[in-house]
Amino acid sequence: MIRIIEGPAVKRRLSSLLFPSQTAIFTSKSHSTISSPQANHSKPEMDAAQEAHNREAFRQAVVNTLERRLFYIPSFKIYRGVAGLYDYGPPGCAVKSNVLAFWRQHFVLEENMLEVDCPCVTPEIVLKASGHVDKFTDLMVKDEKTGTCYRADHLLKDYCKDRLEKDPNLSAEKAVELRHVLAVLDDLSSEELGAKIKEYGITAPDTKNPLSDPYPFNLMFQTSIGPSGLSPGYMRPETAQGIFVNFKDLYYYNGNKLPFAAAQIGQAFRNEISPRQGLLRVREFTLAEIEHFVDPEDKSHPKFSEVAQLEFLMFPREDQVSGRQARRIPIGEAVSQGIVNNQTLGYFIGRVYLFLTQLGIDKDRLRFRQHLANEMAHYAADCWDAEIECSYGWIECVGIADRSAYDLRAHTDKSSVPLVAHEKFLEPKEVEKLVIAPVKKELGLAFKGNQRMVVEALEAMEEKEAMEMKATLEEKGQAEFHVCTLDKVVTIMKNMLSISKEKKKEHQRVFTPSVIEPSFGIGRIIYCLYEHSFYTRSSRDGDEQLNVFSFPPLIAPIKCTVFPLVQNEQYEEVARRIAKSLTAVGISYKIDITGTSIGKRYARTDELGVPFAITVDSTSSVTVRERDSKQQIRVSVDEVASVIKEVTDGVSTWGDVLWRYPTHSS
Amino acid sequence: MIRIIEGPAVKRRLSSLLFPSQTAIFTSKSHSTISSPQANHSKPEMDAAQEAHNREAFRQAVVNTLERRLFYIPSFKIYRGVAGLYDYGPPGCAVKSNVLAFWRQHFVLEENMLEVDCPCVTPEIVLKASGHVDKFTDLMVKDEKTGTCYRADHLLKDYCKDRLEKDPNLSAEKAVELRHVLAVLDDLSSEELGAKIKEYGITAPDTKNPLSDPYPFNLMFQTSIGPSGLSPGYMRPETAQGIFVNFKDLYYYNGNKLPFAAAQIGQAFRNEISPRQGLLRVREFTLAEIEHFVDPEDKSHPKFSEVAQLEFLMFPREDQVSGRQARRIPIGEAVSQGIVNNQTLGYFIGRVYLFLTQLGIDKDRLRFRQHLANEMAHYAADCWDAEIECSYGWIECVGIADRSAYDLRAHTDKSSVPLVAHEKFLEPKEVEKLVIAPVKKELGLAFKGNQRMVVEALEAMEEKEAMEMKATLEEKGQAEFHVCTLDKVVTIMKNMLSISKEKKKEHQRVFTPSVIEPSFGIGRIIYCLYEHSFYTRSSRDGDEQLNVFSFPPLIAPIKCTVFPLVQNEQYEEVARRIAKSLTAVGISYKIDITGTSIGKRYARTDELGVPFAITVDSTSSVTVRERDSKQQIRVSVDEVASVIKEVTDGVSTWGDVLWRYPTHSS
Repeated sequence: MIRIIEGPAVKRRLSSLLFPSQTAIFTSKSHSTISSPQANHSKPEMDAAQEAHNREAFRQAVVNTLERRLFYIPSFKIYRGVAGLYDYGPPGCAVKSNVLAFWRQHFVLEENMLEVDCPCVTPEIVLKASGHVDKFTDLMVKDEKTGTCYRADHLLKDYCKDRLEKDPNLSAEKAVELRHVLAVLDDLSSEELGAKIKEYGITAPDTKNPLSDPYPFNLMFQTSIGPSGLSPGYMRPETAQGIFVNFKDLYYYNGNKLPFAAAQIGQAFRNEISPRQGLLRVREFTLAEIEHFVDPEDKSHPKFSEVAQLEFLMFPREDQVSGRQARRIPIGEAVSQGIVNNQTLGYFIGRVYLFLTQLGIDKDRLRFRQHLANEMAHYAADCWDAEIECSYGWIECVGIADRSAYDLRAHTDKSSVPLVAHEKFLEPKEVEKLVIAPVKKELGLAFKGNQRMVVEALEAMEEKEAMEMKATLEEKGQAEFHVCTLDKVVTIMKNMLSISKEKKKEHQRVFTPSVIEPSFGIGRIIYCLYEHSFYTRSSRDGDEQLNVFSFPPLIAPIKCTVFPLVQNEQYEEVARRIAKSLTAVGISYKIDITGTSIGKRYARTDELGVPFAITVDSTSSVTVRERDSKQQIRVSVDEVASVIKEVTDGVSTWGDVLWRYPTHSS
Repeated sequence: MIRIIEGPAVKRRLSSLLFPSQTAIFTSKSHSTISSPQANHSKPEMDAAQEAHNREAFRQAVVNTLERRLFYIPSFKIYRGVAGLYDYGPPGCAVKSNVLAFWRQHFVLEENMLEVDCPCVTPEIVLKASGHVDKFTDLMVKDEKTGTCYRADHLLKDYCKDRLEKDPNLSAEKAVELRHVLAVLDDLSSEELGAKIKEYGITAPDTKNPLSDPYPFNLMFQTSIGPSGLSPGYMRPETAQGIFVNFKDLYYYNGNKLPFAAAQIGQAFRNEISPRQGLLRVREFTLAEIEHFVDPEDKSHPKFSEVAQLEFLMFPREDQVSGRQARRIPIGEAVSQGIVNNQTLGYFIGRVYLFLTQLGIDKDRLRFRQHLANEMAHYAADCWDAEIECSYGWIECVGIADRSAYDLRAHTDKSSVPLVAHEKFLEPKEVEKLVIAPVKKELGLAFKGNQRMVVEALEAMEEKEAMEMKATLEEKGQAEFHVCTLDKVVTIMKNMLSISKEKKKEHQRVFTPSVIEPSFGIGRIIYCLYEHSFYTRSSRDGDEQLNVFSFPPLIAPIKCTVFPLVQNEQYEEVARRIAKSLTAVGISYKIDITGTSIGKRYARTDELGVPFAITVDSTSSVTVRERDSKQQIRVSVDEVASVIKEVTDGVSTWGDVLWRYPTHSS
């Protein structure tokens, strides 16, 4: 996993959330301790191959079940499909919609967030401002004869791993070199990557033809808005920009008060060069993003105390760099010790932990990893990824970043609409203000057509820079000055501007809010949930291994089944009555009146993760079976729908109802 | 509203659902009776102008409120927006998500439908098969100097309406001619449209420059999948195709049984030439579509009796053509009299009626209009639109069509994967089968390189055609035969093929299912709901007109407010306790602890359609006010969250709780 981004704007967004974080696995200094997926146990080298094999076999079992039961379907399968596009089939779609409903309940409703819904089609100017048009790229090489495209870093990575694994004559030095290349893959420039490909003689994998030099390919799907062909647009690569451009209206809607959070659930698109890793790297996916706007001078959170006691696996930057392992830290401690930058960031880390574990993610295979210095954009205050361990390694599923004022400033600059907040002072305050007054006549004479750029650059100086220039001008009569927009250094004379500090009375503070952004890759979370929920057990006669998904009732695609024990008009009538009462209380069910043995019917629905089965074996009461324990209770026909509702809504647990109703042994 | 479609494939999909059905308004024969938006009342001509003015003023009042309270926001507003793209702001987003949740409950859960979720990015081959690549077009003209694009039919329509309304010297003949043009606008070919534009001397509205001839513009957003530039793709224009291409898997998932329905909610895209009519004609929108697959020989529906008694406004084809008005017909009667083609179609019409009216659509401004012969594709068995009347006229919001086997056959042909169903016979049946046996040697000699096309065309003959050819060959020794794929007529000699009927034993029937498709334009339904829910009333002092949205609790964006009567620590503490208990039961609320007068706070939230207000005026009990009646009851602090939940979930009505709790007069 490497992505070459030249500028800072898009960097964080890329490394967080949207790609499997093999960064950690291949990060040079932490390599030895965390290359194994069970990061917390060191194992003899001998086991590694066996473990890789087991992992692969486990994944195959999960994926086969998922595909056979239509949790997902390769899109447009009858036309041989399209790499990186998948459909959610009926159970997958239900799981997804349950996850999103819970996300709304857990975040939007709980925090009174302002949810918005913006289009996917986005005009170029917005993504120009955000940096995506210029910098949202991967480096690509082309087969010089066939034109087939490959990701440059993938080819280099495959080459290195291949030689490390399969070349018996590899010298110790060469091995060290190849491991180093893997470790720094993320940081290689286009030229360095091209040089390595040449040096190792890497050719096109399919044809062995020579490859072109690497060049950047923009990952956005491009299109054209309207019929003229003059309005380029893109399918959004994230939902966040739709929120940023609406900041002014949302701030007003919130009564001009900070902090507040906006949220959005929606599709996002990335035109991957060569999608790999099945459901983890796709070309279209659902994001759920929160942009929490906060005063940069006060990032405390009123509800922080509610999560402060939570303790879970954290992997701070220092621990990664010094080769230590992830460890359990109470989030309150992590914030008070300065490991996590501020309370609001800490609060969201805690809430994300609760969200994921309540979905059914195993808390021992969930960690929060802090971005290393080289992963983080220069403007970011801090950034943590919720990584979930699955058969592919530790996968970034949620990014939680303090992006400071970067995004709002970028859109303020591009649109000239100030995206700022105001703090009214109770009493006017006297403040010292920097005043930069260019003398346009002199500047015009000196710089002619470039005058405007020079003036703008002078006016944009920060206090420190301006005061230094003032000193230089006073001392030497002139100063050298770099004008970004001209990309050159010009000489400023003393008579070209005045710089002073003036005392002013101010009635309010105007500032650009900071943004704290938890961003969820819903498809990845769901895939990891599948792996964490999957297990097999023997059939009663021991002949077969049966698959089970142990989804919590909240998330299960179908909440219960209704089976008449035998084919019989009376029982079927009762089954239909129960089905109707389930629909009335909003519980999804599956009715199966085939004469198949009850064991087979259980097995079929265990494989869909259905938590409860109602078997109609009399006309007055029925048995209810819980999927994982296989325990059964007897409940009257009239009561059964409300009992099922109670346990699926989370009002009661199975333990509660087990205690209330007589158990049943078959 | 006109759309020129040359072929049949996409025609129905275009005219149904996705565009305001002014077809009815401008249909020649029904013009006089239904051109007024209140179709059921004829009014003196004099009122027409006043009514148009009122309608416009009403719309402005609604739209101003919607925009001011952020129900929607023109997308990318700080960059001056993009025509046809809108964001749902916080209350709009909440309404949308409530509408979709109710749709899932009412259709997917109630009917045990298989919901799927497919990508928006779609490869060309799929939309080639569906007909969209070739035929999903509007006719466009270009300003010959500036290149600005216009919809050809819009310009012609505007010209005709303008002259009819504003030209005092218009002759009676000319007026008849112009009205006729408006009436047949939908049916004009590219050439006819171009000729009319020339004849009337219509020029570009902005510049008066001459216009190009009309030419087709494809309405799909085009893009490219992957980096090679060799895989064209489109943003889907509808969600239905994602279901059709999955038919085989879904049929298997359903135990190889018919009927069953699949459903999908998702974004769809149309690159409109020049979007008009605000929220009604947009470039990106949410569709909710159902594809109900059924045996073409049995379109009965087991639950039809549950809707048969429903009676609502229907507008059958014959009534439109003969200038009658829409009338109330029980749906059971409409099916038994053959007005509606079959029970399944009728069942969905009834269910759609229940869905829309439960959302809050006024049943007197909702009608089901049958497609006229010229609106319907040749393969469609029947098609009805749910049209809702708003200030723009009668708007198509849901299309309910029996599309026969068209879609599955199109994908079967293109993909060569048979999308068929099987009916196993209890006992094998003896059937007479048509056997067409081309003599390839003779055909090869005669047609050389074209042999394959001729053979395929011969084999594809239907029974009737084949038996006619057999007769001709026997009589004359040769027959003329049109080969579509060659687009020419060839001569077939008697020795080139044998045609016979043979008796065979068959164990099953293999057939292509029919598709009955209810397709919902969610954004349009929501916009009409806004208009139907909006009213104004005087403030208590009579100084102001206050806006209210009377959304049913199910749909309201926020379910209740919590107001401490006065600013006071004790009351605020109680307010926070109530807020917490509301969150716990999943009820969205807005808390307002500003000292603003209670009347102002009510007015603010009435305008958001919040149905219930909790005012904290003591520490033990509170008042609950209902938005529309302004009635108030007293409820204890501990009970209030569950009372609000009861009335918003629809378990009780306001009337029920009004009877249970003491009323309160302020």
